Parts: sequence; C-alpha cells; structure tokens
Amino acid sequence: MVPLLMTPGPTEVPERIRTALAHPIVHHRTPEFTEILDDCGSRLKKVFKTDNTVYTMSGSGTTAMCAALENTVSKGDKVLSIVFGKFSERFRDIALSVGSDLETLQFDWGQAPDIGKIEEALSDDVKAVTMVHNETSTGVRADVEAVGKLVKDTNALFICDTISSMAGDNVETDNWNIDLCIAGSQKCFSMPPGIGFLSVSDKAWPVIENKEQNYLTDLNKYRSKYPQTPFTAPISLIYGLQEALSIIEEEGLDKRVQRHRKNAEFTRTAVKEMGLELYPASEDICSETLTSIRSDRAEDIRSSLKEKGILVAGAQAPEKGKMFRIGHMGSVGRPEIERTLEALKEVLEI
Amino acid sequence: MVPLLMTPGPTEVPERIRTALAHPIVHHRTPEFTEILDDCGSRLKKVFKTDNTVYTMSGSGTTAMCAALENTVSKGDKVLSIVFGKFSERFRDIALSVGSDLETLQFDWGQAPDIGKIEEALSDDVKAVTMVHNETSTGVRADVEAVGKLVKDTNALFICDTISSMAGDNVETDNWNIDLCIAGSQKCFSMPPGIGFLSVSDKAWPVIENKEQNYLTDLNKYRSKYPQTPFTAPISLIYGLQEALSIIEEEGLDKRVQRHRKNAEFTRTAVKEMGLELYPASEDICSETLTSIRSDRAEDIRSSLKEKGILVAGAQAPEKGKMFRIGHMGSVGRPEIERTLEALKEVLEI
Repeated sequence: MVPLLMTPGPTEVPERIRTALAHPIVHHRTPEFTEILDDCGSRLKKVFKTDNTVYTMSGSGTTAMCAALENTVSKGDKVLSIVFGKFSERFRDIALSVGSDLETLQFDWGQAPDIGKIEEALSDDVKAVTMVHNETSTGVRADVEAVGKLVKDTNALFICDTISSMAGDNVETDNWNIDLCIAGSQKCFSMPPGIGFLSVSDKAWPVIENKEQNYLTDLNKYRSKYPQTPFTAPISLIYGLQEALSIIEEEGLDKRVQRHRKNAEFTRTAVKEMGLELYPASEDICSETLTSIRSDRAEDIRSSLKEKGILVAGAQAPEKGKMFRIGHMGSVGRPEIERTLEALKEVLEI
Repeated sequence: MVPLLMTPGPTEVPERIRTALAHPIVHHRTPEFTEILDDCGSRLKKVFKTDNTVYTMSGSGTTAMCAALENTVSKGDKVLSIVFGKFSERFRDIALSVGSDLETLQFDWGQAPDIGKIEEALSDDVKAVTMVHNETSTGVRADVEAVGKLVKDTNALFICDTISSMAGDNVETDNWNIDLCIAGSQKCFSMPPGIGFLSVSDKAWPVIENKEQNYLTDLNKYRSKYPQTPFTAPISLIYGLQEALSIIEEEGLDKRVQRHRKNAEFTRTAVKEMGLELYPASEDICSETLTSIRSDRAEDIRSSLKEKGILVAGAQAPEKGKMFRIGHMGSVGRPEIERTLEALKEVLEI
C-alpha cells in the first residue's frame, strides 16, 4: 500500500494528472508541442500573477534557484541573503558558490525575518537579495511584499523562492516586485517533481544580458527559444502540468488560496486543541501550506502515523527529532487532513 | 491522433512504461524510494557495462554533459574536443563555456573521426577528451573503443556522450576506458525525457574532489548521497525507468543490441533499394540506432510522411533541408520500421 502523502511536497498527485503523464509522447520540437509549451507558459503567468515570462526548466526547484543566481550574480557582487531555515540556507550556499561577496542576515528557526533589519542591511552596493517566501523547513511564512517594497527602489534584484507557496498561498510576483520568482512542480501544483519554474523581470534582463553565462542555466538561451526550451523538455511532465493548470483554473486561483488558508487554520486549531505547540514563534507568521509542530516525540509520532498509512515529514537538521510537519498543499483537501488529525489523536491517545 | 514517432529520440514509449509513470507518488526521502533508486543504480551499471556508479540526474542529457565537464575541467585546462556533428559541437561549446584552453578536431559532417589525427593531437598536457559515440545529427557512429585505448595511458579523462546509443547499440564503458559516460532517458531506453545519466571512473574522482564545484552539478554531492540524490528526484520518471530496465533485462542486453543492428541493416538495405543515398560517407560508420538519408526533397518527404501519421526527423543546421533521419531505437521494432518504409515508398512513388 502506498501511504497517504501528507508531507510538504511531494504531495499526492491527482489521478487526472497521473493519467496525463501516461499520454503517448509527442515530439518536443513539433509545432504541436510548441503550442502545448506556449499554452502552459501563458497560464503559468496567471498563477505567478506576472506579466513577465515564466520559464520551465527540466530539473528540480534547485535548478531554478541556481539559474536565478548564476544568471545575475558575478564574482564579487554583494548579495544579501535572508536566512531563516534550511531552504534559505540553500540560497545562501548557492550565492556563495557563485563567488558573491555574501552578507547573511540570519534569523532563528521558527522566526520570520525582521523587516527593519533587512532595511538596515540594504546598502546601495547590494546587487541581489535572496529570500524564501514559505520556509518549508520551519513552516514560517515571510513578508515578501514588505521586502519587495524596500528592494524596488534600489539597484538590487529581488530573488524569491516561492517553491512551496506558489499555486497554494497568495503570491503576487509583479505587485511584490519580485525580479526572479522561483517555483517547482511538486508542491502546491500537485505535480510530480521534475520541473522548475522561473520568471524574469525587465529589471533583471540587462544584468543577465551583460554577464558571462553558464552553459546549462543561461536564461538568454531560454528567452531566445521561448516558448520552446533550449534543451529537451520533460514531455510527460509537461502533459501533467497542463492538467495541473486546468485543475487550478477550474477551482479558481483565489478560491484555491482561500481553501489553503482555511485548511491551514483548521489544522492549527486542531493541533493546538490536542495540546501540541506550533513551531513558528507566532500564529501570524505560520505557513498556509504546511503546519510545523514542535514535539520531542516527533519521530515516534511519525512512525505511528506511518503504521496507520499516513506519511508526515520530520524536521531537517538542526531540529531533527524535535518537530514534525504536516503538508496541506495542492490537491490535499479536508478529508485527507481530517484523516490525518484523527490518526494523530489516536497516536497521542487523546 | 498522435503520430508514430520514428524520430531518433524521443521515441515511442511502451504502454508498460507509461503506466508506470502514473503510479501514485512515494515520498523521495523514504527508505522505500531509496530502495527503488538503489535498484535502478545497480541495474544501470549492467546496461553501462561498468563497475563505476551511474548517477541519475533530474534534467536532460545536456545536464549530464555539463556536469561531466564542469566537474573535471578548470579554467585554462587543455581540452581536446572531437567534433563531427551537432552534438559534438555542443560538447565543444560546453568545454568553451567552462573556460578551457580548447583544441577542436573538426571532421566533416557524415565522416567519422579519424583516429590517426586524434592520436597526433593527444599531447601530454591534454586534461580531457570529449567525444560523441553516436552522432544523432549525422547518423554516424565513432570508434570510441579506439580513442579510449589512446586516452587510457595519458593523464586525460575520456568524456563520452552515448546518449543515443546506450541501451541500444553496444557500449562498454569500462572496456573502452570511458571515464565519464553520459546517457539520457529518451533514446534507446524508450523513456520520456527528464533524466540524464553519468558514470564516473576512479581516474576521474581525484580531479573532481580537488576542484571547486558548481552548486547544481557537483558530483561530490551526488556521490555522498548515493543512491539518494542531492536534489529532489523526478519520482514518476524513476518509476518509468524501473520498468524500462525490466523491459531491457527481459529482452537481454546482447539480444537487444543484435536487434538494433539487424533493424539498422534492414533499414539501410531498404532505403538503398529505393534509390536513396545514406548520409554517412560509408556503411561501416553508420549508426545502428538511426538511419540518416541524404535528399534535397527531405522536407517534402517528411511532410508527406507526417500526413500518413509518421514522424521522422529533419536535419539540423547547416544541413537543414538536405537530409532526413529515421530512428529505430529502443522499443521501436520491425513492424514500425516496415510501416515507415512502406509509407516512404508510397511517398517516393516507387
């Protein structure tokens, strides 16, 4: 038996999408497939709430994170990296690997980034600011809009990872002044992993055009081929993406965001009623796509839930064993959440 | 109607594999999925005919090509790049993009690389040699074994692209002294695109360990996580890969290679009987996984075949319009080839 996936990505993939994956292969360089790519591209713009082009990359979310930094940061460029969990650490590490002059703004796990401190650190010579919207490792949601307002009037590019919020929680790429907005297929899109998404603003292009680029991630190649891709597209996954976008449109993006918020609140209320403690420092910074719960019994709870056929996520280092995380993203709905919470009650013997 | 795919990758994907893609998602960081990755890894070694580990990368074949060069070539390192078509040009361009001191050995399209000239060019200071085994753009097969023998006793690493031959034609990674052997899912594996493969020899590891690495393609990360992957694996495609490997094993790798050779010979004989000219300079350098045919009517022929529900490939620049290519790789068998050749006869009004 395959357990119910209540992890914060990958998520359960609806049968409609899984059936689409099994569609016979159409050659990726035909006009027919170009049309499919074009269709996905224009629909992705609506999900991203952007007028910028959204590029589709064969790979993981990390592929798009690397592409964003490799394309815009040259050796010695000052990068301000806002770190409040595992995935923002990854951003910092990538910024370091491209040879940036790195300034890290570190916040404690479970805390949201302090906007005042970011404002202080945002000097004139900063070339790029990296920030995660929804820290999957801690279940904390950051105020991207506020940081976007600060970065907007500087020369810096605002590079934002919305991998675990896009298509679930509200993300407004253009209104929030995100220059490079990153997402992935396996979170709120309810798709299998294998596609990274990346939108690029007009402010970012001159930087990208005037920089020596890495062969694999060069966004100039992506732009010149669009809606085609410079390298072979993952055809089956693109079929799945089309179906995922249809599911999102049928529900309506705003309604989908409301559903995620209601489900998140429902989950938080239920776990608090069980006497459990939310991991984030306060409720107003809690993620709307996953709930992270502080518990020294985390690994026992996870094992017992797994025996009941439900998979939730543990914590990543350095919090291993002290926290567990329930995903309620994408197509995961109230019935799956209720089943999980019922099982959790049984495990806790409430 | 989806046309019959007789292109040299992507190929028709058998229903068994397409059904496997639709399997419910298992979380990629569970012991259950680690076991699947481990299983694929050990079976891939048999297909590669290597004792080296074969790494599975989320992306395209180009991802693995870039990984091979980025991991082993430092700025200023001398690279000898053997070019005889579009995909060996890509290798050359990647070598250039990593800042190598590049020496290109250029051979005409339709010719196989001249081993004598490679021997002459192989000076002591060469750090890496790049070579394509099966040039999909020209339908020419190169003598990788002979070049491997030359490179073996030098300090250079032998980096070989077997993307369109692995699992179809005979490839002997270890016997041919290939240090970094590259393959992809969408050619003779009959899988959808989305996975690149890369094996790494003992000779290559010290070079990789002692070089500053790119975040995304760093093979040290792949080695330390193996059989797990450093970034999220494309779960659905991995299910497909397992099924593809079962299909290969059920047929038997040697029998599979024989089938490809017989089908290639059958195709060549048939097109010659139609009065068509093979593109490669001589029959002994013809690819066993695709047949390339010289014709000024190439684009007309392709259109007419498409009307009959069969897709073959055209030529890439600079030969556009002067050649077409029939793929006979992976699960494509005699019935599909016969249907294609019959249709070709009708188009040519023979």
